[in-house]
Amino acid sequence: MPQLRQDLVTGRWVAIATERAKRPSSFSRAAAVAVPPAATCPFCVGHESMTPPEVMAYRAAGSEPNTPGWEVRVVPNLYPAFGPADIEPITSSCGPYTTMTGVGVHEVIVSSTSHVDDFASLPVNQIDQIVRAFVERYDANARNPVIQYLLIINNHGKEAGASLEHPHSQLFGIPLVPFAVREELDGVRRYRSEHGACVYCEILATEQKAGERIIWENDSFLVYAPFASRTPFEASVLPKWHSARVQTMTTAQQHDFASALHELTARISHGLNDPPYNFYIHTAPVHQDGEPGYHWHLELLPKLAIAAGFELGTGIMINVATPEAAAEYLRGVDVSTSAVSAATPGIQHR
Amino acid sequence: MPQLRQDLVTGRWVAIATERAKRPSSFSRAAAVAVPPAATCPFCVGHESMTPPEVMAYRAAGSEPNTPGWEVRVVPNLYPAFGPADIEPITSSCGPYTTMTGVGVHEVIVSSTSHVDDFASLPVNQIDQIVRAFVERYDANARNPVIQYLLIINNHGKEAGASLEHPHSQLFGIPLVPFAVREELDGVRRYRSEHGACVYCEILATEQKAGERIIWENDSFLVYAPFASRTPFEASVLPKWHSARVQTMTTAQQHDFASALHELTARISHGLNDPPYNFYIHTAPVHQDGEPGYHWHLELLPKLAIAAGFELGTGIMINVATPEAAAEYLRGVDVSTSAVSAATPGIQHR
Repeated sequence: MPQLRQDLVTGRWVAIATERAKRPSSFSRAAAVAVPPAATCPFCVGHESMTPPEVMAYRAAGSEPNTPGWEVRVVPNLYPAFGPADIEPITSSCGPYTTMTGVGVHEVIVSSTSHVDDFASLPVNQIDQIVRAFVERYDANARNPVIQYLLIINNHGKEAGASLEHPHSQLFGIPLVPFAVREELDGVRRYRSEHGACVYCEILATEQKAGERIIWENDSFLVYAPFASRTPFEASVLPKWHSARVQTMTTAQQHDFASALHELTARISHGLNDPPYNFYIHTAPVHQDGEPGYHWHLELLPKLAIAAGFELGTGIMINVATPEAAAEYLRGVDVSTSAVSAATPGIQHR
Repeated sequence: MPQLRQDLVTGRWVAIATERAKRPSSFSRAAAVAVPPAATCPFCVGHESMTPPEVMAYRAAGSEPNTPGWEVRVVPNLYPAFGPADIEPITSSCGPYTTMTGVGVHEVIVSSTSHVDDFASLPVNQIDQIVRAFVERYDANARNPVIQYLLIINNHGKEAGASLEHPHSQLFGIPLVPFAVREELDGVRRYRSEHGACVYCEILATEQKAGERIIWENDSFLVYAPFASRTPFEASVLPKWHSARVQTMTTAQQHDFASALHELTARISHGLNDPPYNFYIHTAPVHQDGEPGYHWHLELLPKLAIAAGFELGTGIMINVATPEAAAEYLRGVDVSTSAVSAATPGIQHR
């Protein structure tokens, strides 16, 4: 079973998941990651038996589970970083150190039957179904008392950690509230006690008024480059209504979220020559009352820079592009064509 | 001038340093980083005029500054992430956001005249001189009231962010105490108030007693794989005496530190086929009384894994190797030969 270990000085947790070392790509220099071609892809149609039995799928009426006919398919990760989810986590001491059993879930949401199309090129009605699957799996796993936090992530491109080429997202259910979320919850509480308002609503109002960091928007979501962007072209997708949990989206809001995801990734892909990127969705912890403070959101970071010694040793990212220049550039990308721009003039000459 | 910006929610700082985008390698996909060959290397002998004038050098008696004859050379970074250091930082508001001017220093310590030899292959008496340069530059910059924190880092290999191949370290002097150090200082304080002891001295005693995570040791330093290692083969170099500041090393301790750096990097390089890595030295803040709690140390992270969506979204690293297996493997590496092992059997089959 995977094991969580806590750093004695900082209190931070790491997950030791040696099962994952069985993956073909798991222990090699980053540049040598092997990505299976479509013929051996476990996520392609006809290869359903290569994955563990599906947890859920949207499929043609009458088609059997684990056979072709699906449009979005959710399966357990073959090399789970967390699991199983039917037992309580056990905390132990090892001398002065603390460990916890790494119980939880680790699911894969296969984006579509296409081995190559991702959010940037899939039709929005396909992304609608992916978003619906996100919400359904959040809801289903939130009923498990073992799980304290649910995180959906997407790794696009092997340099961003995608070990399988076929576009897919992953849902992690873990037995603790992670540091990156706790520091946001703390920030929300601090801002509310000092200013009497939601810090994310304040950001929304500030960005809409300033305009210079806006990348795109629709009725429900603002897509913008954060004021303190950690990497060139970092982007956030922030709901315009105050809501702590991603699961609260209406069908119309889910469609607006799908559109925002498509627009953002298409601008990144067309404008920056399809760079690798990661995104994740931060929502309130499963069993903690996030109201009235939290405001769920998505954060996307293109992998255009390396976190090196300075960043690792300080926690301060050095970003060579201003978010204002990045947003201006992404606003101007023409996503109506499939042409991919070769240069990023708004940034290169700065 | 570079600008620091604070995230409104988390309170974390980022450095926006657009000057660095002028570097040839600065804005491209990571895989396309251009590393100048030796013929155009600004750190090779005879190319002294390609760098800003040297800050300091250990050189042959009678040789002129900025000419050949040096053994270790310290120069300002041509594309500084922080600077200048002769004016006070200015904090400003931008709506609800906070910025600070990125004053400070950014120096390069060129390891030797060799374009290829790094800590793993340089003679220890050359590493003695590099360590002496670290200490001298710490001491010199610690007298500048503008600088709140001094960090020495090393990026080995282009995948670890080294934009120039010629081995070198970097010293950053920055106008604030970074998050990664503050959380250690907080941990030191918390452990002392709960247990009445230094947490690093406790780790030292625990690791020496357990033995299973020890990689190497000498009279002054323990080299070990931390209990909560974030990446495969992460290693710490911890002084065996309780000391808050790297500058307090005696000449004998500096030599022991040089030996530890050589032994660790040689085992990593020989045993793991010369992987990219980053290291940094954490020491007490410049103008803050680190005594009696802090304990300076070096942390080295081989770049054998990618921080992807889960790690970015949670702050929890997933490590596919146990530190016990990593330490056992590195203990067994024969560094007396220059042969490089092709496989890492202790880990791959786990």
